[in-house]
Amino acid sequence: MPTTAAPRPVVHDAESADRVVTVTFDDGTRARFHPVWLREHCGCAACRHPQTLERTLDPLTVPLDLGARVRVERARLVCEFSDGHTSAFDGAWLAAHAVDLGYDGLGLPPRRPWSSGATDPPRHRWGAVVDDDGALTAWLTDLWTHGATLVEDIPDDPDAGVRLARRVSPLRPTNFGETWDVVALDDPNNVAFTPIELDTHNDLPYFEYAPGVQFLHCLRFDARGGESVLVDGLAAAHTLRDTDAEAWELLTSVPVAYRFVDGADDLRWTTPVIVLDHAGEVHEIRHHLALAAPPALPVERLDAFYRAWRTFAALLRQPDRRWHHRLRPGEMIAWMNRRVLHGRRAFDSGGERRLRGCYVDVDEVLSRLRVLTRTV
Amino acid sequence: MPTTAAPRPVVHDAESADRVVTVTFDDGTRARFHPVWLREHCGCAACRHPQTLERTLDPLTVPLDLGARVRVERARLVCEFSDGHTSAFDGAWLAAHAVDLGYDGLGLPPRRPWSSGATDPPRHRWGAVVDDDGALTAWLTDLWTHGATLVEDIPDDPDAGVRLARRVSPLRPTNFGETWDVVALDDPNNVAFTPIELDTHNDLPYFEYAPGVQFLHCLRFDARGGESVLVDGLAAAHTLRDTDAEAWELLTSVPVAYRFVDGADDLRWTTPVIVLDHAGEVHEIRHHLALAAPPALPVERLDAFYRAWRTFAALLRQPDRRWHHRLRPGEMIAWMNRRVLHGRRAFDSGGERRLRGCYVDVDEVLSRLRVLTRTV
Repeated sequence: MPTTAAPRPVVHDAESADRVVTVTFDDGTRARFHPVWLREHCGCAACRHPQTLERTLDPLTVPLDLGARVRVERARLVCEFSDGHTSAFDGAWLAAHAVDLGYDGLGLPPRRPWSSGATDPPRHRWGAVVDDDGALTAWLTDLWTHGATLVEDIPDDPDAGVRLARRVSPLRPTNFGETWDVVALDDPNNVAFTPIELDTHNDLPYFEYAPGVQFLHCLRFDARGGESVLVDGLAAAHTLRDTDAEAWELLTSVPVAYRFVDGADDLRWTTPVIVLDHAGEVHEIRHHLALAAPPALPVERLDAFYRAWRTFAALLRQPDRRWHHRLRPGEMIAWMNRRVLHGRRAFDSGGERRLRGCYVDVDEVLSRLRVLTRTV
Repeated sequence: MPTTAAPRPVVHDAESADRVVTVTFDDGTRARFHPVWLREHCGCAACRHPQTLERTLDPLTVPLDLGARVRVERARLVCEFSDGHTSAFDGAWLAAHAVDLGYDGLGLPPRRPWSSGATDPPRHRWGAVVDDDGALTAWLTDLWTHGATLVEDIPDDPDAGVRLARRVSPLRPTNFGETWDVVALDDPNNVAFTPIELDTHNDLPYFEYAPGVQFLHCLRFDARGGESVLVDGLAAAHTLRDTDAEAWELLTSVPVAYRFVDGADDLRWTTPVIVLDHAGEVHEIRHHLALAAPPALPVERLDAFYRAWRTFAALLRQPDRRWHHRLRPGEMIAWMNRRVLHGRRAFDSGGERRLRGCYVDVDEVLSRLRVLTRTV
């Protein structure tokens, strides 16, 4: 996902054999395409609505044994399909959508698992991110690839952190509202609102769609203790995969249950602790021991499952995986809540510790990142 | 999920052998529990925060080979665990969370696939649903179990349909805003805003979290044509599973790609067309031929994949699966967008056809349904 424009690939040569169209670009790279795949993505006004760009061609009218005769015309691939239709494709479009050249449908930079928790997450200055699209792009890229960032030099305004979040997307409202202050309360409905230690966890795992990014902006911190802790669930999951095949198999396939219940809400979700995508890579982590409802598993399966669950929980607590930081007023941590776990050490409730929090969702964050960096 | 209070189960007898605790309730039913499972769900003030009810017991301190001596005391199960802790459990709590008695962590009534599209979805009166919690509960239950409902007798107010949606949950804002009118526009950014036919589809499949419920409230309908169409993707998926094992395997595991792109947004998601849950049951359908981006699949896999995709698309078009209805002003259809597909026939844009639409999300809808029907 380069932030400067790459040279636009040009079609140099094309051939069609055995129902595979092979295109050679001017830089010598090659990519193969299927005739039906090409036919369905014809961009002419008969096949796509000229204003909405949605497909108006009915794919079910395209013969599955479609063939194509191909030629290069003005640096474009021209296909004469055996259904009588002729289509032309730009080299840049073909290269951007060629599976042989890395197209995966998502268009995101790779995530980088942490090798240890000893180093600070990337730091960004609030003023730059708020004012400048280049700084916003750099910050969002770090947030996605590293999973966590530290924003500093935030002005003395309790809503300044939230303002940065809103620059990405509207906030995600939840059962705790749009924003909330993490302070020690006399009548807490969440242990975050007490001064006790919080084991590292992913927030709100009882939603099918847990919030994608969490922000905690430090407004006051006069208490002793209360250091924030972050740990990379992606890196820990990779370690589990590489060291304990049985635990990996169980935690990626067997669901745990989460629930939040009060007078207004009864939110529940069942999910493996480690959720894989269709390619078998880690999609998200759902770990929150304090909110785990009874697992809906037959009694015979629990010995093996509890062993696996604790193995992963213990990995997440390994000291060298954990980044500790005492937030200062004017600092904010922002992290991918469905990848990175957060917690805090206990604090002395005699002093004040006030963090303002909010969430945004990952669909909107990644859309914003793509728009800021798009080349095609 | 009974709406009247069931008798609360009482513990009649209990025994512990081979690290399995077997409880007999007063109605003669039995359920088995694991000692660690019981220990982790101790509800005493030392194990759960007395105000937030979150677990403060650290599960990693509970020995995995924990044993329990059990007895019945005042109709409760009392466990003396081998770690020295003693816990007591109510019969009602145990019965509600016993896997042997059907606990699944979600607590929802079963969905009922359509046997055909020939019958109307359940009808509900707007005034009753807006005013009465019992009518709201009945409507939400039908919406979840049948997947679609028809709301009628809506007053002549363009926001009345949206008002009913807001009674369930705040609206889900999307790239089209919080509400939108489906009309034929001169400059559409979506084929819904033209008068052409729309193949049945699931809305907004390019979000990881597609909207759970869609509402379309008919405000005006003077045009010819334009009948609404609904089809149950759950029933069609079951048919595919039972008749074409290869297509089922491919469509439940191999991703397609969806994308929406304009000046402000670049939303993308890759997903199997039929998404299964961890138990192998259909979780959601993601079918939208007009918005399908190029599948990110190697050219060798496309022959088999296109065959499977079309087999399912053709199933969804079978006339006897489809419910057709010409909406009248004052009627609204509401359906589970991630299960039921919707479309419409072309209409004559000389007359006016205006539907007001909005979405709410499934996490909030199901939470509301649970609160309205809860017994434990």
